[in-house]
Amino acid sequence: MAEKVFRSMDGNEAASYISYAFTEVATIYPITPSSPMAAHVDEWSAHGMKNIFGSRVKLMEMQAEAGACGALQGACEAGSLGTTYTSSQGLMLMIPPMYRIAGLQLPAVMHVAARTVASISVSIFGDHQDVMACRQTGWAQLASSSVQECMDMGAVAHLSAIKGHVPVQHFFDGFRTSHEIQKIEVLDFVDMAKLVDYDELKKFRDRALNPEHPTLRNTGENDDIFFQHREACNPVYDAFPGVVEGYMQKISELTGRDYKLFNYYGAPDAERVIIAMGSVCGAAREVVEYLTAHGEKVGLIQVHLYRPFSMKHFLDAIPASCKVLTSLDRTKEPGALGEPLYEDVSSALLESGRKVKLLGGRYGLSSKDTTPAQIKAVFDNMAGDQKNHFTVGINDDVTFRSLPVGENIVTSGKSIISCKFWGLGSDGTVGANKNSCKIIGDNTDQYVQAYFQYDAKKSGGLTRSHLRFGHEPILSSYYVTMADFVACHKQSYMHSYDILSEVKPSGIFLLNTRWKGEQLAANLTNRTKRLLAERNVQFYTIDATSIAEEIGLGNRTSTVLQAAFFKLSGVLPIDEAVKHMKDAVVKTFSRKGEKIVNMNLTAIDRGLEDLVRIDVPAEWAVLKDETPAVDGSLPGFVRDVLIPMNRAAGDSIPVSVFSGNSDGIMPVGTARYEKRGVADNVPVWDADKCIGCNRCSLVCPHAAIRPFLFTDEEAAAAPESCVTKKAAGKGFEGYSYRIQVNVLDCQGCSSCVNVCPAKGKALSMVPLDNVLAEQKN
Amino acid sequence: MAEKVFRSMDGNEAASYISYAFTEVATIYPITPSSPMAAHVDEWSAHGMKNIFGSRVKLMEMQAEAGACGALQGACEAGSLGTTYTSSQGLMLMIPPMYRIAGLQLPAVMHVAARTVASISVSIFGDHQDVMACRQTGWAQLASSSVQECMDMGAVAHLSAIKGHVPVQHFFDGFRTSHEIQKIEVLDFVDMAKLVDYDELKKFRDRALNPEHPTLRNTGENDDIFFQHREACNPVYDAFPGVVEGYMQKISELTGRDYKLFNYYGAPDAERVIIAMGSVCGAAREVVEYLTAHGEKVGLIQVHLYRPFSMKHFLDAIPASCKVLTSLDRTKEPGALGEPLYEDVSSALLESGRKVKLLGGRYGLSSKDTTPAQIKAVFDNMAGDQKNHFTVGINDDVTFRSLPVGENIVTSGKSIISCKFWGLGSDGTVGANKNSCKIIGDNTDQYVQAYFQYDAKKSGGLTRSHLRFGHEPILSSYYVTMADFVACHKQSYMHSYDILSEVKPSGIFLLNTRWKGEQLAANLTNRTKRLLAERNVQFYTIDATSIAEEIGLGNRTSTVLQAAFFKLSGVLPIDEAVKHMKDAVVKTFSRKGEKIVNMNLTAIDRGLEDLVRIDVPAEWAVLKDETPAVDGSLPGFVRDVLIPMNRAAGDSIPVSVFSGNSDGIMPVGTARYEKRGVADNVPVWDADKCIGCNRCSLVCPHAAIRPFLFTDEEAAAAPESCVTKKAAGKGFEGYSYRIQVNVLDCQGCSSCVNVCPAKGKALSMVPLDNVLAEQKN
Repeated sequence: MAEKVFRSMDGNEAASYISYAFTEVATIYPITPSSPMAAHVDEWSAHGMKNIFGSRVKLMEMQAEAGACGALQGACEAGSLGTTYTSSQGLMLMIPPMYRIAGLQLPAVMHVAARTVASISVSIFGDHQDVMACRQTGWAQLASSSVQECMDMGAVAHLSAIKGHVPVQHFFDGFRTSHEIQKIEVLDFVDMAKLVDYDELKKFRDRALNPEHPTLRNTGENDDIFFQHREACNPVYDAFPGVVEGYMQKISELTGRDYKLFNYYGAPDAERVIIAMGSVCGAAREVVEYLTAHGEKVGLIQVHLYRPFSMKHFLDAIPASCKVLTSLDRTKEPGALGEPLYEDVSSALLESGRKVKLLGGRYGLSSKDTTPAQIKAVFDNMAGDQKNHFTVGINDDVTFRSLPVGENIVTSGKSIISCKFWGLGSDGTVGANKNSCKIIGDNTDQYVQAYFQYDAKKSGGLTRSHLRFGHEPILSSYYVTMADFVACHKQSYMHSYDILSEVKPSGIFLLNTRWKGEQLAANLTNRTKRLLAERNVQFYTIDATSIAEEIGLGNRTSTVLQAAFFKLSGVLPIDEAVKHMKDAVVKTFSRKGEKIVNMNLTAIDRGLEDLVRIDVPAEWAVLKDETPAVDGSLPGFVRDVLIPMNRAAGDSIPVSVFSGNSDGIMPVGTARYEKRGVADNVPVWDADKCIGCNRCSLVCPHAAIRPFLFTDEEAAAAPESCVTKKAAGKGFEGYSYRIQVNVLDCQGCSSCVNVCPAKGKALSMVPLDNVLAEQKN
Repeated sequence: MAEKVFRSMDGNEAASYISYAFTEVATIYPITPSSPMAAHVDEWSAHGMKNIFGSRVKLMEMQAEAGACGALQGACEAGSLGTTYTSSQGLMLMIPPMYRIAGLQLPAVMHVAARTVASISVSIFGDHQDVMACRQTGWAQLASSSVQECMDMGAVAHLSAIKGHVPVQHFFDGFRTSHEIQKIEVLDFVDMAKLVDYDELKKFRDRALNPEHPTLRNTGENDDIFFQHREACNPVYDAFPGVVEGYMQKISELTGRDYKLFNYYGAPDAERVIIAMGSVCGAAREVVEYLTAHGEKVGLIQVHLYRPFSMKHFLDAIPASCKVLTSLDRTKEPGALGEPLYEDVSSALLESGRKVKLLGGRYGLSSKDTTPAQIKAVFDNMAGDQKNHFTVGINDDVTFRSLPVGENIVTSGKSIISCKFWGLGSDGTVGANKNSCKIIGDNTDQYVQAYFQYDAKKSGGLTRSHLRFGHEPILSSYYVTMADFVACHKQSYMHSYDILSEVKPSGIFLLNTRWKGEQLAANLTNRTKRLLAERNVQFYTIDATSIAEEIGLGNRTSTVLQAAFFKLSGVLPIDEAVKHMKDAVVKTFSRKGEKIVNMNLTAIDRGLEDLVRIDVPAEWAVLKDETPAVDGSLPGFVRDVLIPMNRAAGDSIPVSVFSGNSDGIMPVGTARYEKRGVADNVPVWDADKCIGCNRCSLVCPHAAIRPFLFTDEEAAAAPESCVTKKAAGKGFEGYSYRIQVNVLDCQGCSSCVNVCPAKGKALSMVPLDNVLAEQKN
């Protein structure tokens, strides 16, 4: 057997990589979060990569997903192995041709980064609403719960479709798995080629449309024969679980990982068992290990093959000792008695007469983080109230379906080091963290995991990077909320977010800040100070912003901060880390010239050298948390929804807050309450230099710069600080104007300065703190 | 209370009529079998009909169903009460906006003539595949099982949507209910207006998009709040079954019919109970009455409100004595453990701990006729083998899931007279039968039912009319296969179909034929003769074809035959019937002139006068049925599929015949085996008169006329009967030609004769029998 090859990649890349092996035609239309799959295939094909048949994938982007799935049918009817990639609304458009593809028993495969379907609102995040809307189409449905499974189950999907003549929808959780980077084993195309059933492949090709031996298909049928004809497919579906099981065994033999239609994990004598599919199984496996280590009799049934649902295999997976079973569904079907998996399990239990109490619950809608504490709550519920049709992960104070969830529990592997980074969208934090993972993944035998959490603002919004490293596979399919190392790359965040609550006792906290000494102390909240002291946190600062400016990198602070991370975290011996970082700099930037390379090499050195260890005064431990001032004049929606969301505390909003908006209708004009103040530097206006062209206002992407026109009377009545200037141009006689900068809306992009045609620039960038301090005076 | 108003209409008309009351905007795209609903609304609106708000419905036809449903959302968001009508593939395109409409809690309503979704083949016929693909969208789903219910439940749908803020999908079986004509009570718009909850309607209008008080909707949400926000709709769904129940009570009070979320029919102490929805409930109610009358403890739970599924109401509907319950699903979801209703019922039973054995089965896919004998088989199965996941109505000799079905049983009401007509598509039989129903429905207190069964050939194909009349509501939701009166309107059908098997003992059989005396006897099969004698059938003939030709009606035989029907069937006193028929002639044709009116009045008289009673010789009773000759050279597909289908015996084809075609792929070139010979008169070619223009061939819609070119050698070598003629025109020197008429493909339309420019016509129409007789010689 060849040496195993490991690489760091996300679920999208894993699924698309393995799909490439078996694909001749890819018919696509991009939709979040599945788009990178098609993008990878397109790129690999353009670079001449070959599938197992020695040919490049032919990729076709259609007008929309309806066309992509129609073309998929066409490709398969013509005898090509066809594949598509999609999510959510896109998948909804594929439903009609999916029935046909299944009816025609074509070996099509689709890889779905499963995502919420728009209802009260659009969400690009992950749950199973989209794939569950396909469960009646006759496609097989195969679920992956991790990045490694995206690769392994992806292979099973294609191989089984060819051998078994049933199209396969392979799905995994959008964002959580599609965008989670893990170091995984890459399957070898040579091995894959050996697993194909070439006899069945030939049968498929022989039945394809061919003018040499024409056939008729897509006929119309009436009530006299349709029913009989439709039932003729039963043997194909009856056989399919066996086909999939066979390939799972083959992949298990090849990889040493153990795949079954239904995998069981946990105590052999478990009394309380969860059944679920998708990424939650990672967290659930951790919790099962944690609880069994504490003597509890619990277990997990992980569903891989959801359709066809094999009752026999399901029943075999339940431990004989099981007394209570809970089905966790990552979807909501309003008006249904229970969610899909719950209903399937109900049917199987009732039919078999198996005496197991069944409960069901919803979790994780739209990527709601599903934590070990929530899973524990599900196990506790089985031992306690046995609430059915519950939700977990939210506070439902309206219909009271949610389970109470206890304190966080730490269930990830003992060797795992966890890190969390708070950054500004487009500040380079995410890119640097991906690079760090690559360095660690490629150069050590450590496993790595990285997940990047974005807010809806994209550029200029909040990004949180969740990184884990360790010597064992990383199952933790949830956010890092208690870390060994926490970095805050933006000092203003210290006012906005409760960052210190995520640092483990004796953990490390790194703050990128210009604040020094007294100013630093003055800018930290009591709560931050107390947590620093109470938890004995190793507190470091670095002024990466100034360093980057100083060495010519402008606002690109990420290399400085990456170096600081490697030095402080100790994930790698520092010399080794520095070598790899510097190699990466040379590799990445050498085509941009020596100057750029040298600036980045300097940034690494300065990131190591300029770290400042801050002594945390013991007396901070007794400081009292500030009571947040509540502005009674704020509209309820702003107070109860907008402000918590902007504090990154939206998860804590209870259901009742949305009672008046349960139809999705929201108030307008709320942006005015959202002053984020995320720019390090903001423009100030120099009336003397301004020529009144208004270009700064036109170009500002955040509407932070607005020109105002005043009559002479208004200008005269304005306060002194409201500087105005005579307006020029025909028709503006008797007017003066002013360029108003709303500095808290500014994101510091400098577009206004760059576009200003005035000699010496009428706008110049100044630290936000200075401007705010001046405004206060 | 106002006098009840009854009218004969089909399910489409009933649903669209009541929808008109509550609709302000109808956004539509036509698709079989739902198209007539939108067509009615369009017509009524064009004629100025007013809804309960005093306005005409604004109807908009969109580019497809996706747009129709998008526009529906838009209309509702703007505060209008919106409605759409659709089926099958069209409904599939509506799925994405359906989620949004439900999320926004808009009171949209759609009426669905439920239809098969294309898989192995397209079928325009009815089952629940399409609506079951919507069960996860958050729409309520309300099922009607009869034409009357289309009206009554249609009202409940609109009223509940307004009061309860959940959009409602009201569905009924495509063709079986959408196209079945029944005499039903028409609800009064004035009564409907009184039932609207105007407070809730105002709330809906107040929340609509309005520039005076703008709101934001269709926002984007992230993982922090989506889940909580989504759960906020729970109270709306929890309350909705109560809302629907309330309106069912109101409609019940108004009409005297008893509607519940789950209606129970049958023995109070039933041990075996069926649960089902849609038209099958009609047949099932009959069978329950039949079996309980025979002392069997059986019952039926009819589902009206399928979503939200109210467990409480469901459990309350099960008799305490129930030991076995069978869920009948009119859909197939390959790979699912069980079909949707089965799984819901499973969950409810498991959850409640109710000790009832559950079985599930599929029936009636794509309008497969579901007969009392099949329903009885389902009850028998509960008492016997208790086979689960069965099918009923077909012979599954592959996976052996089908139930054995016994002999036909007669379960329809005692007062019911049933009639069956075998006609040629476009021969006027269907129109005449609709007219007969109208005459009987409008002028007597009898109930009427009419269902028209078409084959896939449309014009020129086989039409079977199934009519019932009687003094009690007609529940029989299945074909007439054992009739008091049977008519065959086309003599050649006596060779093709087993028509006599459908005549009750002592029933009446009317044959439209030119055959007389010996010729008649010679043309009847032994089987026909035997059945005529054995069953003591009253056998009549009439030569409507000759009569119609003689009095100038050309091939329009239907009035003659309608008169004969009224005379023989005795549904009405004949004088009364004649008066109504003649009134109808005057009303229908008066604008076409006196001549046409008189021809039709004469046709009525001749239909009464020219009937010939045929004496059936007693010795026919001992004739032996012919053994059909099997042509061993025929391809298997032709022998096993095509020929039975063409014999109208496709229902008897077992599943095994399709084993090699379970992917829907069919052989080509089978039309050559389908020689129907349905024309009364066919063209013969007169070479002498022909000018060789080939127009006859160009114009023939059935490719029955084909010109052939011969070289001189070929012409010389041809047999004598192959008459040829020298071809004219440059380049045709040395060639002769022939116009070949394939008389068995001809449908007798005369287009060729009409288009022939030759003096005196080179083609003339001659009775098919004569041509065939000559060819034999």
